[in-house]
Amino acid sequence: MGSMKEERKITGWAARDPSGVLAPYTYTLRNTGAEDVLIKVICCGICHTDLHQIKNDLGMSNYPMVPGHEVVGEVVEVGPEVTKFKVGDCVGVGCLVGCCDACRPCKAEVEQYCNKKIWSYNDVYTDGKPTQGGFAGSMVVHQKFVVKIPEGMSPEQVAPLLCAGVTVYSPLNHFGLKKSGLKGGILGLGGVGHMGVLIAKAMGHHVTVISSSDKKKEEALDVLGADDYLISSDVERMQELADSFDYIIDTVPVHHPLEPSLSLLKLDGKLIIMGVINVPLQFVSPLLMLGRKMITGTFIGSMKETQEMLEFCNEKGVRSTIEVVKMDYVNTAMDRLAKNDVRYRFVVDVAGSNLEEETTN
Amino acid sequence: MGSMKEERKITGWAARDPSGVLAPYTYTLRNTGAEDVLIKVICCGICHTDLHQIKNDLGMSNYPMVPGHEVVGEVVEVGPEVTKFKVGDCVGVGCLVGCCDACRPCKAEVEQYCNKKIWSYNDVYTDGKPTQGGFAGSMVVHQKFVVKIPEGMSPEQVAPLLCAGVTVYSPLNHFGLKKSGLKGGILGLGGVGHMGVLIAKAMGHHVTVISSSDKKKEEALDVLGADDYLISSDVERMQELADSFDYIIDTVPVHHPLEPSLSLLKLDGKLIIMGVINVPLQFVSPLLMLGRKMITGTFIGSMKETQEMLEFCNEKGVRSTIEVVKMDYVNTAMDRLAKNDVRYRFVVDVAGSNLEEETTN
Repeated sequence: MGSMKEERKITGWAARDPSGVLAPYTYTLRNTGAEDVLIKVICCGICHTDLHQIKNDLGMSNYPMVPGHEVVGEVVEVGPEVTKFKVGDCVGVGCLVGCCDACRPCKAEVEQYCNKKIWSYNDVYTDGKPTQGGFAGSMVVHQKFVVKIPEGMSPEQVAPLLCAGVTVYSPLNHFGLKKSGLKGGILGLGGVGHMGVLIAKAMGHHVTVISSSDKKKEEALDVLGADDYLISSDVERMQELADSFDYIIDTVPVHHPLEPSLSLLKLDGKLIIMGVINVPLQFVSPLLMLGRKMITGTFIGSMKETQEMLEFCNEKGVRSTIEVVKMDYVNTAMDRLAKNDVRYRFVVDVAGSNLEEETTN
Repeated sequence: MGSMKEERKITGWAARDPSGVLAPYTYTLRNTGAEDVLIKVICCGICHTDLHQIKNDLGMSNYPMVPGHEVVGEVVEVGPEVTKFKVGDCVGVGCLVGCCDACRPCKAEVEQYCNKKIWSYNDVYTDGKPTQGGFAGSMVVHQKFVVKIPEGMSPEQVAPLLCAGVTVYSPLNHFGLKKSGLKGGILGLGGVGHMGVLIAKAMGHHVTVISSSDKKKEEALDVLGADDYLISSDVERMQELADSFDYIIDTVPVHHPLEPSLSLLKLDGKLIIMGVINVPLQFVSPLLMLGRKMITGTFIGSMKETQEMLEFCNEKGVRSTIEVVKMDYVNTAMDRLAKNDVRYRFVVDVAGSNLEEETTN
């Protein structure tokens, strides 16, 4: 039994302080509990949140910190009560590894809204030990927080789906916006925005990328397959398209006006905010009232939605645009991400990297 | 046939200029068209909007203006194609008397969101003539914009339901908040707020009146039958009640912070804004995202919802708190309304007033 074994020593890449520089770090993994799965990490996506966490931008970072919450790996051991997985399965782990199982959100299977949720890293597990993420050789995760990667999907392609993908899939699913023929807007074309275009297109929507400049026009239309590109300062087109959108997914992570988006929405249209913005956003009430419009926001997605989303993406052939790098490039990747110099997601080839050895870039 | 007759001269009480002073005014009513109903006005509620309109607070007033959009009357003539009503029926007219019948909101039977809707007064009808409201002996209204008052309801009691009543009924109906057992908050206890308490209680909700002071506590609990009274500056109780409300109906008509309400909402809770506020309201996005909460607003209700609401209020015995006045008191009533000196709605006994003669108060 796993619980009888000695704890395992493994190596991951950790930040030691708010400089955020990652370097090899050796730590122990807990034994494989009754419902735990031991996963050998194959690859791991890099999300903007990782950058904020390693640099303590949110003021809540604990070090050493092994980031990574878009983890794909292979099951190498399962606890005696694990029913969902077997050795050899290709699986994924996202932002969360624990929840209380007792509150209303948990009972409604939307554990991402549990107040006692446990993050994949920079958190404390039920055993009192820090959680560490996917920039590491292995992870031990309770089966509830593990999803099955559908046959035939490439691990690197899947990684960004586990956070960015489900983040846009969840509101479309929850708010009844999955049906084909809808007209959607994607505001901002970063990691989440690019996934928004791909997933909304796969749902059969007419997708408009909305941006403050024409810089990403070719990319949006020709590479990602968006149907239209709207520059928010183009008064004429903004008026022409007023009252026409079923939803707008707003991925802009800094303060910005909401009026343009609210005006674009039709009756019952939904403005879905994905950016954590602590500066107040503003609106005037008649813009909501005279069209029963809605401002809302959602937070990643549930494990159930994550599994559904993977099957949806597999069926529809959704392929994210990624740049695969080795672990010894991760500090450079973080620097580039800070400058938005990536199309659209870095994925670290963890299994193909030598985790023990640091190379100075 | 109505269309062959001479146009009728009638008297209403009109404002002539932004002083808003109402006085007798004689004008003509159009002939009863094929789908029109001629209504002898019995009584008419006074809404805060009437006050804004007669004083040109919104900058869009045309004079002479006969206000009144909570109208109850008796059918005295019907056009040849009227199928819904017959002479002698007790009927109601609300805020609207026309719409385009062709747009998406109209086709979805939510004509209150039609961009070409025609207001009961201070608007222009399809014949090019100004519309005039219910502070008058009669009105001619297309049958689509007339509702049947259920047997046994008193006209004076019904009047405030036609605007304030349906204004709170509509969002509860539309957003799936009619079922019993929900926990609702009513922010602000004016005409709409008081109706919110009565209708939410009739739906079987646990209703909390939320206010900035304890001034209306006794009234809310003892007279209106609210279950709880929460003072928004009471930090301890605000914390205790955090994450517990299914919805909050926010009737405050001036700028105010939204954070306290958003914090009170539980997962998927809805903040429904009813006040037309042209100063921007503010929120920080994590407060929405970390509970999939929603800020929305609705605008009166559809004719279909108005009819449903009347039947609901009749069945549940909802009785609004009103003060019945004669027409010669209306200028005093308007002054008192401006000072919120009314519990909770003035209703003008139009049929019992001498409309031809002005008495100086």
